Amino acid sequence: MKIAPHSKLVFIGDSITDCERARPVGEGLFGAVGKSYVSLLEGFFTAAYPGHGLRLVNMGTSGNTVLDLKARWQTDVLDLKPDWLAIMIGVNDVWRQFDLPRQTEIHVSPAVYEKTLNELARKTRPKLKGLIMMAPFYIEPNRADAMRARMDEYGALVKKVAARHDALFIDTQAAFEPVLQHLHANAIAWDRVHPNIIGHAVIARAFMQAVGAQI
Amino acid sequence: MKIAPHSKLVFIGDSITDCERARPVGEGLFGAVGKSYVSLLEGFFTAAYPGHGLRLVNMGTSGNTVLDLKARWQTDVLDLKPDWLAIMIGVNDVWRQFDLPRQTEIHVSPAVYEKTLNELARKTRPKLKGLIMMAPFYIEPNRADAMRARMDEYGALVKKVAARHDALFIDTQAAFEPVLQHLHANAIAWDRVHPNIIGHAVIARAFMQAVGAQI
Amino acid sequence: MKIAPHSKLVFIGDSITDCERARPVGEGLFGAVGKSYVSLLEGFFTAAYPGHGLRLVNMGTSGNTVLDLKARWQTDVLDLKPDWLAIMIGVNDVWRQFDLPRQTEIHVSPAVYEKTLNELARKTRPKLKGLIMMAPFYIEPNRADAMRARMDEYGALVKKVAARHDALFIDTQAAFEPVLQHLHANAIAWDRVHPNIIGHAVIARAFMQAVGAQI
Amino acid sequence: MKIAPHSKLVFIGDSITDCERARPVGEGLFGAVGKSYVSLLEGFFTAAYPGHGLRLVNMGTSGNTVLDLKARWQTDVLDLKPDWLAIMIGVNDVWRQFDLPRQTEIHVSPAVYEKTLNELARKTRPKLKGLIMMAPFYIEPNRADAMRARMDEYGALVKKVAARHDALFIDTQAAFEPVLQHLHANAIAWDRVHPNIIGHAVIARAFMQAVGAQI
Amino acid sequence: MKIAPHSKLVFIGDSITDCERARPVGEGLFGAVGKSYVSLLEGFFTAAYPGHGLRLVNMGTSGNTVLDLKARWQTDVLDLKPDWLAIMIGVNDVWRQFDLPRQTEIHVSPAVYEKTLNELARKTRPKLKGLIMMAPFYIEPNRADAMRARMDEYGALVKKVAARHDALFIDTQAAFEPVLQHLHANAIAWDRVHPNIIGHAVIARAFMQAVGAQI
Amino acid sequence: MKIAPHSKLVFIGDSITDCERARPVGEGLFGAVGKSYVSLLEGFFTAAYPGHGLRLVNMGTSGNTVLDLKARWQTDVLDLKPDWLAIMIGVNDVWRQFDLPRQTEIHVSPAVYEKTLNELARKTRPKLKGLIMMAPFYIEPNRADAMRARMDEYGALVKKVAARHDALFIDTQAAFEPVLQHLHANAIAWDRVHPNIIGHAVIARAFMQAVGAQI
Amino acid sequence: MKIAPHSKLVFIGDSITDCERARPVGEGLFGAVGKSYVSLLEGFFTAAYPGHGLRLVNMGTSGNTVLDLKARWQTDVLDLKPDWLAIMIGVNDVWRQFDLPRQTEIHVSPAVYEKTLNELARKTRPKLKGLIMMAPFYIEPNRADAMRARMDEYGALVKKVAARHDALFIDTQAAFEPVLQHLHANAIAWDRVHPNIIGHAVIARAFMQAVGAQI
Amino acid sequence: MKIAPHSKLVFIGDSITDCERARPVGEGLFGAVGKSYVSLLEGFFTAAYPGHGLRLVNMGTSGNTVLDLKARWQTDVLDLKPDWLAIMIGVNDVWRQFDLPRQTEIHVSPAVYEKTLNELARKTRPKLKGLIMMAPFYIEPNRADAMRARMDEYGALVKKVAARHDALFIDTQAAFEPVLQHLHANAIAWDRVHPNIIGHAVIARAFMQAVGAQI
Repeated sequence: MKIAPHSKLVFIGDSITDCERARPVGEGLFGAVGKSYVSLLEGFFTAAYPGHGLRLVNMGTSGNTVLDLKARWQTDVLDLKPDWLAIMIGVNDVWRQFDLPRQTEIHVSPAVYEKTLNELARKTRPKLKGLIMMAPFYIEPNRADAMRARMDEYGALVKKVAARHDALFIDTQAAFEPVLQHLHANAIAWDRVHPNIIGHAVIARAFMQAVGAQI
Repeated sequence: MKIAPHSKLVFIGDSITDCERARPVGEGLFGAVGKSYVSLLEGFFTAAYPGHGLRLVNMGTSGNTVLDLKARWQTDVLDLKPDWLAIMIGVNDVWRQFDLPRQTEIHVSPAVYEKTLNELARKTRPKLKGLIMMAPFYIEPNRADAMRARMDEYGALVKKVAARHDALFIDTQAAFEPVLQHLHANAIAWDRVHPNIIGHAVIARAFMQAVGAQI
Repeated sequence: MKIAPHSKLVFIGDSITDCERARPVGEGLFGAVGKSYVSLLEGFFTAAYPGHGLRLVNMGTSGNTVLDLKARWQTDVLDLKPDWLAIMIGVNDVWRQFDLPRQTEIHVSPAVYEKTLNELARKTRPKLKGLIMMAPFYIEPNRADAMRARMDEYGALVKKVAARHDALFIDTQAAFEPVLQHLHANAIAWDRVHPNIIGHAVIARAFMQAVGAQI
Repeated sequence: MKIAPHSKLVFIGDSITDCERARPVGEGLFGAVGKSYVSLLEGFFTAAYPGHGLRLVNMGTSGNTVLDLKARWQTDVLDLKPDWLAIMIGVNDVWRQFDLPRQTEIHVSPAVYEKTLNELARKTRPKLKGLIMMAPFYIEPNRADAMRARMDEYGALVKKVAARHDALFIDTQAAFEPVLQHLHANAIAWDRVHPNIIGHAVIARAFMQAVGAQI
Repeated sequence: MKIAPHSKLVFIGDSITDCERARPVGEGLFGAVGKSYVSLLEGFFTAAYPGHGLRLVNMGTSGNTVLDLKARWQTDVLDLKPDWLAIMIGVNDVWRQFDLPRQTEIHVSPAVYEKTLNELARKTRPKLKGLIMMAPFYIEPNRADAMRARMDEYGALVKKVAARHDALFIDTQAAFEPVLQHLHANAIAWDRVHPNIIGHAVIARAFMQAVGAQI
Repeated sequence: MKIAPHSKLVFIGDSITDCERARPVGEGLFGAVGKSYVSLLEGFFTAAYPGHGLRLVNMGTSGNTVLDLKARWQTDVLDLKPDWLAIMIGVNDVWRQFDLPRQTEIHVSPAVYEKTLNELARKTRPKLKGLIMMAPFYIEPNRADAMRARMDEYGALVKKVAARHDALFIDTQAAFEPVLQHLHANAIAWDRVHPNIIGHAVIARAFMQAVGAQI
Repeated sequence: MKIAPHSKLVFIGDSITDCERARPVGEGLFGAVGKSYVSLLEGFFTAAYPGHGLRLVNMGTSGNTVLDLKARWQTDVLDLKPDWLAIMIGVNDVWRQFDLPRQTEIHVSPAVYEKTLNELARKTRPKLKGLIMMAPFYIEPNRADAMRARMDEYGALVKKVAARHDALFIDTQAAFEPVLQHLHANAIAWDRVHPNIIGHAVIARAFMQAVGAQI
Repeated sequence: MKIAPHSKLVFIGDSITDCERARPVGEGLFGAVGKSYVSLLEGFFTAAYPGHGLRLVNMGTSGNTVLDLKARWQTDVLDLKPDWLAIMIGVNDVWRQFDLPRQTEIHVSPAVYEKTLNELARKTRPKLKGLIMMAPFYIEPNRADAMRARMDEYGALVKKVAARHDALFIDTQAAFEPVLQHLHANAIAWDRVHPNIIGHAVIARAFMQAVGAQI
């Protein structure tokens, strides 16, 4: 298990991470950690490693792009002084290019995406024991689909930035592949973006494997 | 314009037709006709042909399959004594095969679908001035997608049944093609099933053209 | 079709335009464009001209008079940098004279109406590719009705201002005439102001014809 | 004052009478009598004639036509054993002919209207100390308006039936005339049917004058 | 009728006046005048004197004492530039002495009550065509009841201040007497303060008589 | 303490007893016993006599008269097999005579009241270890008030019936006297019927004293 | 993995299983499986064994005791024709003995508990491929606590019945022990009964281990 | 009775005191004093000592620790100028150490607890006629339970501070002991913290005894 006892993990991201987490900080009583894969990690990490005393904090915000993360980075990441940080961002950066193609002013281009992600990683990595960068994903098996292709492009940028900053890279898109061989995307997410419990388990499982947790 | 003045048109279908129509009958004051393409037809037919005095009645019910239509056919179609009847059904017959693949008892097979549709058309056609059979659709441009392929199969069955009963066939799936060449499916329906105003306009337009209405 | 591809159209007006559009800007996901004739235009323009990639933005606000438009002109029109602008205002300017006759301080006189409309048109026309000025209307066939007569007076002022600024004038009041020969006003709007789907289709149709769109 | 002390008055009618009255019987605590002219009569009759101890019971039901009254006549009129009965019905009988012209099966023709009203009066008059028949009205000063003309026709039938059964006839339509000389219909009712407090006061005043009450 | 045509009347007071009036100003569409005696006056004044074109504005606020009136006098009375002003205040000034006897800091003593009322009348009377001062009341026939006795004391102060400023004094407490000879207080107001429609009619009637209106 | 350990006490009555108790039986988790004096007894009996293991069941129903009790006596009293039964009824029997004086058919006369109460006591007393009959009360110190006088009359009937059936009589009206010497009725109940916490404590105290409980 | 592909698993139980599952059957779209450990199993079983195509059906009902299970056994278990059945019941059977000690008629004694459980297992086991019997638990580390001791007694009965019917026994109480060595019960469930995500993960993990699933 | 007539008592604390009290000050009409033991004291003190005219003000706030009290001490205690002050705080100071053990930054250590309590008592005692310090409690009979042991530790600190400042100390934990000999903690509070009516009566009784009130 790569995460040392008593570590604090912050998860920053968009609606896939958010899932009704508490404000202003997604940690505490009454399901404050939300209902996403972060909650699954909270449950199973504590069940399997009760002595580790890990702290998981959900800082996802629905609708965010990487530019929104940048705008709230100080209060929502740095001020929380995490030991480990997990970033999963990009679906909104890409989606708006396809569902609101005419509103180009709200699109986040690959260049801006990479640059911003890189900037955030550079400024934060030195303060962390570990950084985890998760690819954004689109639960669409057809790689020729325009949005899937664009998502793969963004995922590749995450991988590139992760490599530059000694971060653990988690290929969430790849994690969905074996499931999509048995199930149609509709069995995981009607909109191919917001997963049901199966999809969150896929993400959580990929995360557990990446950090070497035996559940 | 193929529909004669003072005709009564009943639209039977699923959630794509329903869209908050009134119960038990989708006709009358306060938006009783709902917010789907039926409402668009109501508006433009009356605006363009005010002297025609057409009556449009929305009898769509969310979640219905062709078997549900059969179960309510007497009260929801025959008792209303329509001059023209429009049927658009099938998306739920197909969808459940992909989003709930393990619950096979609620799937409607192509054989049952065709047989039931045929039975409904045969028993009703003689009482009608006109029957319109609209293909179910999936707003997915990739014909290799399993659900799109299955939907095309069901659409072909509609076409076959329509031919057998002297019905006007409307290929709604085809109507979406030119739009999908310019817009990603996400710009019309996040779940590729329930269209926004653009998708409803596509359907309404195909309908207008099929009946020769000049708007 | 007079509107060039990739144009941005802003619609400014009152409750007839508004119809639950999103705030602060009526454009985007989840029906942000509202449920008025603007939505009908959005649907049919995209369905018929998918390659045009037009942007429609609904900036109507319920209860507004021309003085309210003036007060929010910078943020709600100029800042949005439209290529085309459509203005339909005046019903509240007139209505209050009849439903709240004793509150004269909230009435907008013809003189103030014309002057303000003229001022807005003059300051904005140079920045536009096209300006569309739509008459306010009252769905009352009796021209001798005091409020209808006053509305006609305001409509004539719109026509006059439109001519002065090279704007397309749409006579919405006239557009209702053929329909009112077949239907009582009550079949379109109980209060003769807020139209149902038939009335919105009448307006949308007049708009389409004015800009030469073939639906 | 024509109504003797300790009399019980029942008011039967449609939404103009109803106005949130209690179910199943509109009499009792917590504003059970509703907010229409019946409530105004309840207030002023008691204030001016506190020793009379009159009972007022509101049995109006929104949307009712004369056929609906007939269907509930036993429970809602006869079982209550009124001393005096006031009937005001007809606006829905007429209105549907204009706002839903194509749904002719729900229209109530003048012949059916008169016959039903006559039947109800005949069966009930002998059990009453007094019967009051109020004309239905349309707050539209233009007698040439199709719906106003039709309403006048129904009002004339009420007058005729009233004469036949020794009933007090109240010409509510006439009662609105002097007010309409000073105020546009919009100042009383946007839809020209459901009055605000001014319109209810007009009706209540006509009622008070008809029964000789000095308020 | 003492109030000249085209006059504007403002009613200032507490919950007995307020009754759901609109904010910030109780005048306009959608029942903005509230549901108290002010609404009854609005209805019957307009019905009986349609040519007078009176404006009635309800500025009552639930829970107010005379000190609250003073605090909002500029915006809620003076800025509205009334021709006539009606003041009915005092029930909360008195009530709190009896239902919250231990919270003496929120009680308004007779001395403070008189002084404040006098001050408001003096500063306002010169700008008015007419001032109406209505006694506060307690619907309790037992003059020996401690709260009734105190209310009578406050009512006498209103009469005294009214005399000093040439105001019409309305003895609302007296207006309830004849009704209370026939009805128990419980038939008008369970809490002997907030009247039902009967009580509001009593107040409205006293007002009409005071200004010489023939309804 | 007159009530033996492990006894079951049922309280039957009206809104003063009810106070949001659970349905169908007012006993169990989540405050099922309601918020009236029954709850106070539940709390203090258990706090002071934890070893007694008493069961308190609240069967009050808002709006009930003695006739309503009779109608539900089998299910709501007898079927519960109480050891002790407490009855407090009568306020609605009396109140309606004063707040709805014209609806005489819903009034419960002294004769009917006494007869019914007597009948219930006779049929139930033999099955009980103890019967407690509590007078209805009116929090009005003026004995000359018509409703107070009537309430005293009903209280006397309760006392008479209690004597006849070997029941403990609790004079709740008397219990309020010392408090009313210091507080106006308004400090206990605005409507002089539904008490606040002070009034419920007065009732609970009278009950505790009657059964000899030392709290 | 002991459960064969394409098996159907039904989970029957109380609120710990229920957690907002859909009615009448807890399977299908929109989170129909609820939010308990059953949902966690649904997610991770599908993520780790996508080719297995397992069906999980949640039939838990809040507040149930073993007697409630018996009453709905036909419709809620047998009619669903499960391959595997998991039963976890007993907390309410025990809890009521401690939170409502005086309502003995709703307590389920150990004898009744064992007898009923045995009866259900005997009648159902022959139709199943596998039966899983899970002990009820109380998240209280103090074995001397009266309710914990009683819960252990019921757990032992489950173990005994499981042995008699060739069922897999899961000792959920034991599964909580290692976690309770590091965390106070309050960190898992304020009421020591309804677990948060940590507790559900503990249960799910015990289940996975019992059936040999490698997550 | 130690509390002199006309004294004002302020109760400051956490959710056990709060129980829906009004904001900003828990005193006045409509149950402003909340539903906790403060309400019980309000009721019984007034019922038993109506001539005392005591004022009880509930200033509890859910979730508060002693540090929260300190932060609002000026407005919520000193500004209210109490004669007597009752403090019961500490359950959240302790609870968070057990239900959120990893969030150590929100824990209040014994040292900080004692120091802050001491500081508040020292600054306030001179202005008071009497100070009452109530121990925080945990409705857990097992003294070996880690949270109960910690709570006892905090209770001892309260006793120590009380002695130092001439305050009445109320040992609420001890007050629960006799009840816990007969009832399981679950019969008083599922979470062993927030009591039902029994628990509030236990607290109120301990308070009454401490101040020598005879109820």
